Amino acid sequence: MQSKQIDTIIRGGTVVTPSGTAVQDIGVSGGKISELGNAIASSAPTEIDARGLLVLPGGVDTHCHIEQMSGAGLMNADTFRTATRSAAMGGTTTTVSFAAQHAGQKMRQVVGDYAALARKGAVIDHAFHMIAADIGNDNLTEDIPALISEGHRSIKIFTTYAKVRQDDKSIIDILALARDTEALVCFHAENDGLIGHMTEKLLSEGKTAPKYHAASHPREAEIEAIDRMCRFAEFTGARIMIFHVSTREGAEIVRQARSRGVRVQAETCPHYLFMTADVLERENAARFMCSPPQRSRDDQEALWNAMADGTIELVTSDHAPYRMDASGKFAHGEDAPFNQIANGMPGLETRLPLMFDTMVSSGRLGVEAFVQLTATAPARTFGLDGKGAIVEGFDADLAIWDPEATHNYGANDLHDNAGYNPFEGTTVKGLPLHVFSRGKILVRDRSLLTEAPQGRWLPMSAVFGGVTARLV
Amino acid sequence: MQSKQIDTIIRGGTVVTPSGTAVQDIGVSGGKISELGNAIASSAPTEIDARGLLVLPGGVDTHCHIEQMSGAGLMNADTFRTATRSAAMGGTTTTVSFAAQHAGQKMRQVVGDYAALARKGAVIDHAFHMIAADIGNDNLTEDIPALISEGHRSIKIFTTYAKVRQDDKSIIDILALARDTEALVCFHAENDGLIGHMTEKLLSEGKTAPKYHAASHPREAEIEAIDRMCRFAEFTGARIMIFHVSTREGAEIVRQARSRGVRVQAETCPHYLFMTADVLERENAARFMCSPPQRSRDDQEALWNAMADGTIELVTSDHAPYRMDASGKFAHGEDAPFNQIANGMPGLETRLPLMFDTMVSSGRLGVEAFVQLTATAPARTFGLDGKGAIVEGFDADLAIWDPEATHNYGANDLHDNAGYNPFEGTTVKGLPLHVFSRGKILVRDRSLLTEAPQGRWLPMSAVFGGVTARLV
Amino acid sequence: MQSKQIDTIIRGGTVVTPSGTAVQDIGVSGGKISELGNAIASSAPTEIDARGLLVLPGGVDTHCHIEQMSGAGLMNADTFRTATRSAAMGGTTTTVSFAAQHAGQKMRQVVGDYAALARKGAVIDHAFHMIAADIGNDNLTEDIPALISEGHRSIKIFTTYAKVRQDDKSIIDILALARDTEALVCFHAENDGLIGHMTEKLLSEGKTAPKYHAASHPREAEIEAIDRMCRFAEFTGARIMIFHVSTREGAEIVRQARSRGVRVQAETCPHYLFMTADVLERENAARFMCSPPQRSRDDQEALWNAMADGTIELVTSDHAPYRMDASGKFAHGEDAPFNQIANGMPGLETRLPLMFDTMVSSGRLGVEAFVQLTATAPARTFGLDGKGAIVEGFDADLAIWDPEATHNYGANDLHDNAGYNPFEGTTVKGLPLHVFSRGKILVRDRSLLTEAPQGRWLPMSAVFGGVTARLV
Amino acid sequence: MQSKQIDTIIRGGTVVTPSGTAVQDIGVSGGKISELGNAIASSAPTEIDARGLLVLPGGVDTHCHIEQMSGAGLMNADTFRTATRSAAMGGTTTTVSFAAQHAGQKMRQVVGDYAALARKGAVIDHAFHMIAADIGNDNLTEDIPALISEGHRSIKIFTTYAKVRQDDKSIIDILALARDTEALVCFHAENDGLIGHMTEKLLSEGKTAPKYHAASHPREAEIEAIDRMCRFAEFTGARIMIFHVSTREGAEIVRQARSRGVRVQAETCPHYLFMTADVLERENAARFMCSPPQRSRDDQEALWNAMADGTIELVTSDHAPYRMDASGKFAHGEDAPFNQIANGMPGLETRLPLMFDTMVSSGRLGVEAFVQLTATAPARTFGLDGKGAIVEGFDADLAIWDPEATHNYGANDLHDNAGYNPFEGTTVKGLPLHVFSRGKILVRDRSLLTEAPQGRWLPMSAVFGGVTARLV
Repeated sequence: MQSKQIDTIIRGGTVVTPSGTAVQDIGVSGGKISELGNAIASSAPTEIDARGLLVLPGGVDTHCHIEQMSGAGLMNADTFRTATRSAAMGGTTTTVSFAAQHAGQKMRQVVGDYAALARKGAVIDHAFHMIAADIGNDNLTEDIPALISEGHRSIKIFTTYAKVRQDDKSIIDILALARDTEALVCFHAENDGLIGHMTEKLLSEGKTAPKYHAASHPREAEIEAIDRMCRFAEFTGARIMIFHVSTREGAEIVRQARSRGVRVQAETCPHYLFMTADVLERENAARFMCSPPQRSRDDQEALWNAMADGTIELVTSDHAPYRMDASGKFAHGEDAPFNQIANGMPGLETRLPLMFDTMVSSGRLGVEAFVQLTATAPARTFGLDGKGAIVEGFDADLAIWDPEATHNYGANDLHDNAGYNPFEGTTVKGLPLHVFSRGKILVRDRSLLTEAPQGRWLPMSAVFGGVTARLV
Repeated sequence: MQSKQIDTIIRGGTVVTPSGTAVQDIGVSGGKISELGNAIASSAPTEIDARGLLVLPGGVDTHCHIEQMSGAGLMNADTFRTATRSAAMGGTTTTVSFAAQHAGQKMRQVVGDYAALARKGAVIDHAFHMIAADIGNDNLTEDIPALISEGHRSIKIFTTYAKVRQDDKSIIDILALARDTEALVCFHAENDGLIGHMTEKLLSEGKTAPKYHAASHPREAEIEAIDRMCRFAEFTGARIMIFHVSTREGAEIVRQARSRGVRVQAETCPHYLFMTADVLERENAARFMCSPPQRSRDDQEALWNAMADGTIELVTSDHAPYRMDASGKFAHGEDAPFNQIANGMPGLETRLPLMFDTMVSSGRLGVEAFVQLTATAPARTFGLDGKGAIVEGFDADLAIWDPEATHNYGANDLHDNAGYNPFEGTTVKGLPLHVFSRGKILVRDRSLLTEAPQGRWLPMSAVFGGVTARLV
Repeated sequence: MQSKQIDTIIRGGTVVTPSGTAVQDIGVSGGKISELGNAIASSAPTEIDARGLLVLPGGVDTHCHIEQMSGAGLMNADTFRTATRSAAMGGTTTTVSFAAQHAGQKMRQVVGDYAALARKGAVIDHAFHMIAADIGNDNLTEDIPALISEGHRSIKIFTTYAKVRQDDKSIIDILALARDTEALVCFHAENDGLIGHMTEKLLSEGKTAPKYHAASHPREAEIEAIDRMCRFAEFTGARIMIFHVSTREGAEIVRQARSRGVRVQAETCPHYLFMTADVLERENAARFMCSPPQRSRDDQEALWNAMADGTIELVTSDHAPYRMDASGKFAHGEDAPFNQIANGMPGLETRLPLMFDTMVSSGRLGVEAFVQLTATAPARTFGLDGKGAIVEGFDADLAIWDPEATHNYGANDLHDNAGYNPFEGTTVKGLPLHVFSRGKILVRDRSLLTEAPQGRWLPMSAVFGGVTARLV
Repeated sequence: MQSKQIDTIIRGGTVVTPSGTAVQDIGVSGGKISELGNAIASSAPTEIDARGLLVLPGGVDTHCHIEQMSGAGLMNADTFRTATRSAAMGGTTTTVSFAAQHAGQKMRQVVGDYAALARKGAVIDHAFHMIAADIGNDNLTEDIPALISEGHRSIKIFTTYAKVRQDDKSIIDILALARDTEALVCFHAENDGLIGHMTEKLLSEGKTAPKYHAASHPREAEIEAIDRMCRFAEFTGARIMIFHVSTREGAEIVRQARSRGVRVQAETCPHYLFMTADVLERENAARFMCSPPQRSRDDQEALWNAMADGTIELVTSDHAPYRMDASGKFAHGEDAPFNQIANGMPGLETRLPLMFDTMVSSGRLGVEAFVQLTATAPARTFGLDGKGAIVEGFDADLAIWDPEATHNYGANDLHDNAGYNPFEGTTVKGLPLHVFSRGKILVRDRSLLTEAPQGRWLPMSAVFGGVTARLV
């Protein structure tokens, strides 16, 4: 019996927990879920009537770029304040963004700087992936292992992009360290040579429009690099995560690697599930440019199958906001060739409604799988204890969804700072009505109540054994 | 807050729930888990000190033969009483055994007869698979769909064994029915022709000893039949379960089928994980005869990988008890040729300790995966609501394990009626100390307290969407 | 130096031999190729100017139905005379058709009867596959092994069609015999149960039109059966041939089986390469009905890739002629349901022009591959010594092709007795101008010169080691 | 009828030609095979009695290092004289060795230098692969395309070895050129990062003995790189050759790539077929060091299956001779760490006897496949017209084998200059008795008759369409 004061009671909602889905009440005390049950007897200062609504854990978005300086020296459009308020509006209550090292920098300083920015602005809780762009300068031997032991247990590696990419030996050296220190290594996996060859060829032929971006990042680039990273993981025994899988073959390579016992996990993103390459032939196509680029309907089917059979375990946003002006996409001019236009699009706020619409409203895989893919699995994978599930004792990060509410996305109706919505024109059914972070209500009736920087940094616990994760 | 009287409190154990593993107390009221939490304040008539122990859901064994007449007309050695007391001693609190139709019988009668036997003897809760051996005689059009709608949602089909096996068209007809009525079809999948050819050949060469049993059931027989059943499931859209996968190729076929969206699940059994074909060259090898037969170390590794990556989701016993005398294995004499010796071995009691020893004590995959494979997934797969997990409101079917206790299996130390232990000589670490069924203690300090027939029949709820099951 | 009289000299053609392709002369003596070389000095009674023409071995068509009684008791439209004259007109100089056993018949009698028919009518040389429809009655133990040793080294098995299909055990028994006696076992591989289930379902829904034929033979039926036959071949070690592979998956299964060392070969036919399933929606669709049915463009691409990488080694016609009247397709009436319309279409005459048009005229794979797939490989696979290649000492079975000649197929312009051309409306480029059988000219300037029954039966030599065949 | 003088007649041998294997006579005139037939009537100055012997085309060894400066600056032990006399003694009459560019060199100069060395020393005919180690300096735009058009149609690329290896973009640039100019690109495919990581790790642990060489070149290094090169070939459409495939997975990757239409071919070498990794634990293990290193029995089986099913089309020697002294293996001292010991072993002379022993004497795949793998396919693949087969008009490069002769290899019984035989102690059955190059006898009764530098450079004809090659 709970003796402590209950701060908030959410009554009568359909609650999705790891133990099942049922109508029950939730009591929140001191920022934690303190009670789950039928008809909580006591009363609370705040009571929410959730009858007819779905009560879900707040989303966990483990792949987003916030207030980040790109390898090309471009600052993205969001501060932690703007990004995380957007996240909250979309039902997400935890972000993992990047502490982006550049050549010559010490990793400890990099992580410290991003942590300070987040402390100053983040509305919700958060953690960081360390982008390893320079493993010399004692970073591999000192800063990185020390930071891992302090809870920064995720490293991000690029296999492409000139200023940040790591060569194979460096990657393997990092993997060996990660294996020994229980860190997880995440990859942007595309073959740099294929991209370089095609970019050079296309530009030399005067093919500079955004639509050539897709051709410059051929599917073989992703396929090859995913295979390579899986082989390295197999060799070293390290745990890895393949970010943003976009192709049928990429998913199949991950599947086969897992069957051999390789400790590899994979994510995909809504823009691969809901867009195809032809978006790059639309007007203002720079809006849709991202890497890897969108693919085909056949790939989308394969990605859904890979989510169904457990090969792809996470869906994240890869939120990478750049404004459609000189501060962002057009830093090199309105007519810049495709390779000088920043990659990425905003997604923190749309990720969950898009997935909910298909998975819950349209019934593809169902609400439990929606929660698993967008909250529970991301939290478990990155050791974010107390997040991603509705469990007594966990943080009261909750999103109460109205499954009947609909919204038709407009040109600029998001709460980040990118200034556009790449899903303009799409109608979603099912929206987060109220959102709580550690028991505090951030969003009420789809309106933002606060932008106070109350988010806390989350250490990652020693991430556990990879392949066993998914059995539970 | 729970106002009802708490009957039992289990205090201070390490409790494995779908929400995670933590030290907490469990309150039991009216046969249900009524409370989970830290330091339950009230007291109860029965209090169990579980400090240092693991509190797990009772095991769910969805593949066991109890009081069953085989196709060859042989009654197996167990009654529901002996079988289920053995299960309880091994930490298992739910069985799914077979209602075995024979040619000419009406399915409703068959199910009724087995249900009566179970009512009379079962110490624990239970359900049935309907063995479809005769789909004419209005069974397919009347009895079976009616029984499905009443909660008998699992059908078992043999692809081999003369008197019970179904031909391909019948199998497909059943699958089409199962798809339309939300039933699950389980397969003993071995190619009858290969077995027939080899049996005839071996016998004609005078090779009649038990060791030739393995040669008479070649791995190709399983591989072929698993592929065939997966193709049928792909074609019909029905959900299927492949029983007792024993080969590397069998697991890979299931994996590939799932990647194509086929709704197939798979189980394996301890004798495939812990024995290899050479047991059939030991003395009294009839003890170890089962179908499919044991395979190789390479297959064992592949099966473990398939459990790790989610391809094999269940571990069951395939308990099939025959005494080593004229009532069982030697019904056709001590020197009967291999094809006249009953297949199967007892396993209800050893399943969980063997798996615990490797998964928990030795650390392969871990305790959460152990619970998932042996309790949660079996219960979810077959729609056994309220079973297989420690969740408030679920049945208080609990097994409290002492992770330090050890036992060296003897020649005849099990509580079933088979009269021998096929794992004689094996030492396991980790044993169920106390076992509860719907809140009632059956086993205390590893001693059986009751054999009263208190088990209840469990209807299977409409089993849900197959591939999504595993995401949660 | 050849001292014997040269009967015929073909001068200046581009000759395709196993040693390469070059302009050279060919001398023919006593029905054999007696000399190959540049500028044969002597003269001959017959001299052919082949400048600008391609001189190829006569085609070898190892899959055709001639004067055959079907399992359903229907005699097909061709006699050996009409079928083989059609073959000759299409550039084919060797056929392997079927000696079709029915239940209750002795195989020796069956083979004898067909041999007599062929002796009486065949214009070209020929051999037989024995269709094994009844292996009891001493056939498996006496007739078949004896006939194999006499040179009837090919057995055909149906896995479907009620009156002729063999069950798995019989198939395996036959494979074991074939392995021991160096015979090759050919399969019509489709799952009987799937076809039966779908046929029953479609008919019960009143879906009787020819277009439902495709649905009644789903791709899974072929895929499943090919896998099964490959597993049986793997188990027994016998050599097998999969007839008429029509699906991507079917080809991949053969490829994977070969990589495991299984002695399996495969063929496909022009109607799978040049037609898709939508032909069954055209008028008079009974014309196009065959089993397996036509598939998709994607399958066609996969079949071409499988020819390119050596997985599919033969292209045959599966010539199965039925007239569009009560003697054939409409034996059960003009409105007979699809399952009572005879399967098959004529193809002996169109096989080579269709393949030449694509492979040589359009350049897909090239003329050497054309010869290999349609003549050399069929001859070698079935041990037809002296056939299928232009080699000194081989039979002078030659086809001189005009690569520039074109023809637009008409409604009824073939020389068989089917009365229609399923490729009506197709234009081919490249046609056989002159055709020789054992040195005797049968076709001159695309006109048939003789229908005399001069063909001889060809014993099959002990077919050699399967997988090594393709290396040479 | 041949009117020209016949120089040599080989009578009564069993001759293996593309048209088949038969006892016949061979006439040689002007260095060419002028006549093939039964009982050549005329007489010749030289007549060879080949009764009871096998007459085969001289071997074509398309992978050997002769008089080559390695990337590490070490000259190998052979001159063209010593290497090619050794080849001839082993039944090989054509070599393709390397024109090894180093950084800063112009390719035309490099090719010219090697051609001059060969002209001065080569006893037999020969061609060159251009090793592309520096594609800047106008090499890619000028020298290489010009040389290709002159008949140097093969380019070799290393993916590892510091001074010569090419990065991915350079490789793709070369592949694009090769596709456009009809050249073939050959790969030493091993991942440089894995090798670098392991080498550094092993050395840091003091593990410097030769046996650690195997660990420093893990199988994943080959597997990864083969996959990568296949993906690049798929993307560019270029034809590629994977040199020295040593692993099961490597062969499977090639097989799957071919099934997708990728124009990839593969070779393996005797040391992978007849040695396993444990040779590196023998005394003087430096003798056996090569890259990739020897593997396991399981890999050997997979390589044989891959030869049988056509995935691996060539068997070459990878002859790389270094003496066991300071001029070679021990250039960095007797105790040099494994990474400072030259890789490679002599093999020109042993390649064919080793393969003959298994393929012909022991019957694995047979003599036609032996000729195909070691002579015909290498010649066709590299466009070496007139080589690799016994065909009228082809060069009279012939090896007459005594299938009964045996030899037990000694410590130093080869005719190259390496000073040791890595197959010491192995007994082979079947040896080349007489060897002819362009009609001139080089070896008679297993004795070398001449070391005169009579070999000629062979231009490579535009190599034809890859995958179609194997169909003929």
